[in-house]
Amino acid sequence: MRYAYLGPQGTFTEAALHAVPEAKDAEHVPYSTVPAALDALRRGEVDAAVVALENSVEGSVPTTLDELATGQPLQIVGEVQLPVSFALLVRPGTDFADIKTVASHPHAQPQCRRWLAAHIPDAEWRAATSNAEAAQMVADGHYDAALAGAFAAARYGLSVLAEDIHDVPDAVTRFVVLRRPCPPPEPTGMDRTSVVAFIGEDHPGALLEILTEFAVRGINLTLIQSRPTGTGLGSYRFWMDFEGHVAEKRVGEALMGLRRICADVRFLGSYMRADRIRPEIRRGTHDADFIEAAAWLAGIRSGRL
Amino acid sequence: MRYAYLGPQGTFTEAALHAVPEAKDAEHVPYSTVPAALDALRRGEVDAAVVALENSVEGSVPTTLDELATGQPLQIVGEVQLPVSFALLVRPGTDFADIKTVASHPHAQPQCRRWLAAHIPDAEWRAATSNAEAAQMVADGHYDAALAGAFAAARYGLSVLAEDIHDVPDAVTRFVVLRRPCPPPEPTGMDRTSVVAFIGEDHPGALLEILTEFAVRGINLTLIQSRPTGTGLGSYRFWMDFEGHVAEKRVGEALMGLRRICADVRFLGSYMRADRIRPEIRRGTHDADFIEAAAWLAGIRSGRL
Amino acid sequence: MRYAYLGPQGTFTEAALHAVPEAKDAEHVPYSTVPAALDALRRGEVDAAVVALENSVEGSVPTTLDELATGQPLQIVGEVQLPVSFALLVRPGTDFADIKTVASHPHAQPQCRRWLAAHIPDAEWRAATSNAEAAQMVADGHYDAALAGAFAAARYGLSVLAEDIHDVPDAVTRFVVLRRPCPPPEPTGMDRTSVVAFIGEDHPGALLEILTEFAVRGINLTLIQSRPTGTGLGSYRFWMDFEGHVAEKRVGEALMGLRRICADVRFLGSYMRADRIRPEIRRGTHDADFIEAAAWLAGIRSGRL
Amino acid sequence: MRYAYLGPQGTFTEAALHAVPEAKDAEHVPYSTVPAALDALRRGEVDAAVVALENSVEGSVPTTLDELATGQPLQIVGEVQLPVSFALLVRPGTDFADIKTVASHPHAQPQCRRWLAAHIPDAEWRAATSNAEAAQMVADGHYDAALAGAFAAARYGLSVLAEDIHDVPDAVTRFVVLRRPCPPPEPTGMDRTSVVAFIGEDHPGALLEILTEFAVRGINLTLIQSRPTGTGLGSYRFWMDFEGHVAEKRVGEALMGLRRICADVRFLGSYMRADRIRPEIRRGTHDADFIEAAAWLAGIRSGRL
Repeated sequence: MRYAYLGPQGTFTEAALHAVPEAKDAEHVPYSTVPAALDALRRGEVDAAVVALENSVEGSVPTTLDELATGQPLQIVGEVQLPVSFALLVRPGTDFADIKTVASHPHAQPQCRRWLAAHIPDAEWRAATSNAEAAQMVADGHYDAALAGAFAAARYGLSVLAEDIHDVPDAVTRFVVLRRPCPPPEPTGMDRTSVVAFIGEDHPGALLEILTEFAVRGINLTLIQSRPTGTGLGSYRFWMDFEGHVAEKRVGEALMGLRRICADVRFLGSYMRADRIRPEIRRGTHDADFIEAAAWLAGIRSGRL
Repeated sequence: MRYAYLGPQGTFTEAALHAVPEAKDAEHVPYSTVPAALDALRRGEVDAAVVALENSVEGSVPTTLDELATGQPLQIVGEVQLPVSFALLVRPGTDFADIKTVASHPHAQPQCRRWLAAHIPDAEWRAATSNAEAAQMVADGHYDAALAGAFAAARYGLSVLAEDIHDVPDAVTRFVVLRRPCPPPEPTGMDRTSVVAFIGEDHPGALLEILTEFAVRGINLTLIQSRPTGTGLGSYRFWMDFEGHVAEKRVGEALMGLRRICADVRFLGSYMRADRIRPEIRRGTHDADFIEAAAWLAGIRSGRL
Repeated sequence: MRYAYLGPQGTFTEAALHAVPEAKDAEHVPYSTVPAALDALRRGEVDAAVVALENSVEGSVPTTLDELATGQPLQIVGEVQLPVSFALLVRPGTDFADIKTVASHPHAQPQCRRWLAAHIPDAEWRAATSNAEAAQMVADGHYDAALAGAFAAARYGLSVLAEDIHDVPDAVTRFVVLRRPCPPPEPTGMDRTSVVAFIGEDHPGALLEILTEFAVRGINLTLIQSRPTGTGLGSYRFWMDFEGHVAEKRVGEALMGLRRICADVRFLGSYMRADRIRPEIRRGTHDADFIEAAAWLAGIRSGRL
Repeated sequence: MRYAYLGPQGTFTEAALHAVPEAKDAEHVPYSTVPAALDALRRGEVDAAVVALENSVEGSVPTTLDELATGQPLQIVGEVQLPVSFALLVRPGTDFADIKTVASHPHAQPQCRRWLAAHIPDAEWRAATSNAEAAQMVADGHYDAALAGAFAAARYGLSVLAEDIHDVPDAVTRFVVLRRPCPPPEPTGMDRTSVVAFIGEDHPGALLEILTEFAVRGINLTLIQSRPTGTGLGSYRFWMDFEGHVAEKRVGEALMGLRRICADVRFLGSYMRADRIRPEIRRGTHDADFIEAAAWLAGIRSGRL
């Protein structure tokens, strides 16, 4: 087994990959961008991929959402949540007073803005393609410091000048494990399902219709994120995560409802929640209720009242 | 074939029975009350029954609604609409000035109130069990005049003193043809379905939920009528007529939704509308849309995206 | 003060009138029909009227609903609930075996059908304009027995052959006290409001819109009853009773919403509930919430954020 | 008048500022980040600011959304839409074959990914803080090429090697003009309103409630964007743009509804749409309808029916 991840070595994504039990003995293959990792999976160069989907401070990762919403379908088969805490990495011997430039992935900067202003107010921030690349550029002498995971220090021969850096405590990032299309993992009762819906022509009120398809079957959304379709302002597709598994009848019926009212729906997977929360299922929406109702309907249709 | 109807001979229900094509060569059996006619059908004394369900002026017929909502199930297999127009029947020789009392079924009086006030303001109204019984009582000399269908005059040896009596023009009554439970008639594209739903425990907002089950599948209601369950003020069951046939997938799914959220749902039949209106089916709710969505869902569940 | 009621003396409505505290020293004026009582109030012959609105077994009283929904407006200022229990009234000396005919208002018969079938199965039922009239006709020798309130026996010189007759235990009837238009009684926190809404042109889904106007402001309906407008099957107006008082802001806003979406809305009164239930008000819909939100909006509009 | 914008000179934001009529004779003051520009406005260093809000390809700008949703309130008073088209800027004499590195703001890269792969497949992309900074770094010799607006070439002494670069045709960016809190601009009939709503405690279905507050008053959303609150995955605030102006009664009532059901609502402004679309107002939701309904309610409350 080979797992693609957003490299280089030392990224938070690599740390997430280490938290995936099935990837324990697998080969870990770094790619320089999320699209590159996903395309490698599509082409069959790797068997799975791990990418960041959303962060509790910076929000969803647009590239991941857009790459999964279009192109050849991939499927989420698991998720991992990692606490996010930055370290300030420098070349050995560097002190706070020496730091003129700090580099990081653009996602990291807003999470540490206040810390930076308080501790190295005169340093200029520089964008890097990944935090690990920022570390590499510090090692290469281009920049003076990098915001990255502390675990990246050893890999790039750097020192940790400060740890546990974040403006907001308890920040977490949610990563997803992707495979090529396959039967979803078995339901566990603590599952999440992801879809992307494109409503189609200008249809005010359509989002209300979509939410009603879920509500009428007792399904709670855990994330809704609009993304432009690229065809102009005002045209969006919606990424939605919700409680439940596609194998459940309430979920199946809701998905069919979306399919009937939307111009396009892409199923992105049903998988066990990283937080292991087992949500209550609303009365009347258990599989047993659907089975009983279907038997009742069959009776009616054949004349047994 | 034997058809029960609300007798005696000369009622509007008998006139409706004459408008049922399948009853053309059948035996017509009068019963003195709606419950008696329905019980005869339940016991197998007759093969079908015709009863009034609602009138465009007086509203639904509570006895019919309540008798069909409870007891051994019966099924609506057809409907008939008849214009309602009353005649003033008297013994030959009676003139307006001679009329001291006018009898009718209590349903007829409010439909003719203004006419009575204008033409025989001093006559007192008397309740009868049916308009035909009122005619019989006029023939027997108990009352001076009866409001009934003009067609009842000959049967009771009475004269028609005035015709086409009604306060509201174009009044119609809708009658239904009932059978013991049987497979519903074939869909025609101009069908109506009737159900009775009992919500159950105190559940504010439940009616909104029920209507949402229909709305989300593009189904329009044509009648909603609350009836007490008998267990106290504030406890109701809802008779609902709506467009479509139980054989349609949108209707089937809506009915299963009701079944899941209500304490009890009774299916009362799918049958061709008397008005032969062929309603438009909302985009995304045709059978073909449900079939396509089900195939899509099956693909997802088996790993074909 | 003069109060109209559905007479003659000895009706349940008269008993209800006795339960109205403000009517204690008033003159009680019987009328032979509900429309007659209401027209007397409209003309100013009386100062108030008491009429039955709904019964927990037989449902709403169509005449009352229709008379209040049309014509010159009247206003409900109070309600009374009375347990309903029938007595079998006969001329002194009559025994069960002697009863060939039983008369009552048509509303009473279905509430006693099973009792009648069990105790005097061979007696024929006869319709009367009121239960009290039925008692009068027994006294006059036209019929052998009457279903009426036991309190009517003395008034008509009859004996009570059986008491506490009902197929369904705990039946109650709800009566309303009407006045000509006037400022509503003060809110008590245990109020009910009644309106009649006419949706207008063919507008499928309009009932859902109406219910949403209530739901969005946390208002629970206690009764919804469709009544034909008289212009043809499928055209209805809706009588709705709901929790709250027109003086409350949530109720005012909901009523304005109805006014904006319906072809016509008639306000019928806000008045203290007979059951003295004090419903919980949903978070965010207290008057204080509306007042705070209005102050906030005023700030925004004038540039104070 | 002084207008802040995301600099340095040569950014798309500066181009947007040139399209703001009121800013014609104003001083244009560049800031290195969106937060810096907004804080300058908050502190009173400038009188207004122009920042990008969303792009039809890359979506909303998280920094702008988050900065406006928190901190001292600012208000949107206008918007500008600009077509976005990139140029490849190089030092004079550079040819395609010479390009080893291409720099840009991270927002630009995904909009040109396919073009880059087709035309300079071997060049590595480098992140810059703004496209103009990328141009500066090319001028300084750090990188070989920059993706930026063609208008930036002259400013940095660079040549345009390719123009009109974009993977998706017709991309546009929407910028907003901000002021400190002030009375909103006058309604024009082609207005948009922006708010941020924070639902509060875990409240599944709350988004449906919010959308219903808009739908019930006939207001269409033009953008809904979830953003994390920073307190953990699953806690979001919603940025919503919708048709209409806060001075309109339908909008005022909807905003008060949001205020009552949400833990927090921030008004961000009502302003004329850049696309000058004049949306139809649904029947029953014009100001005149609200005024008529309020007069009717006042009549009811004072006893005039």
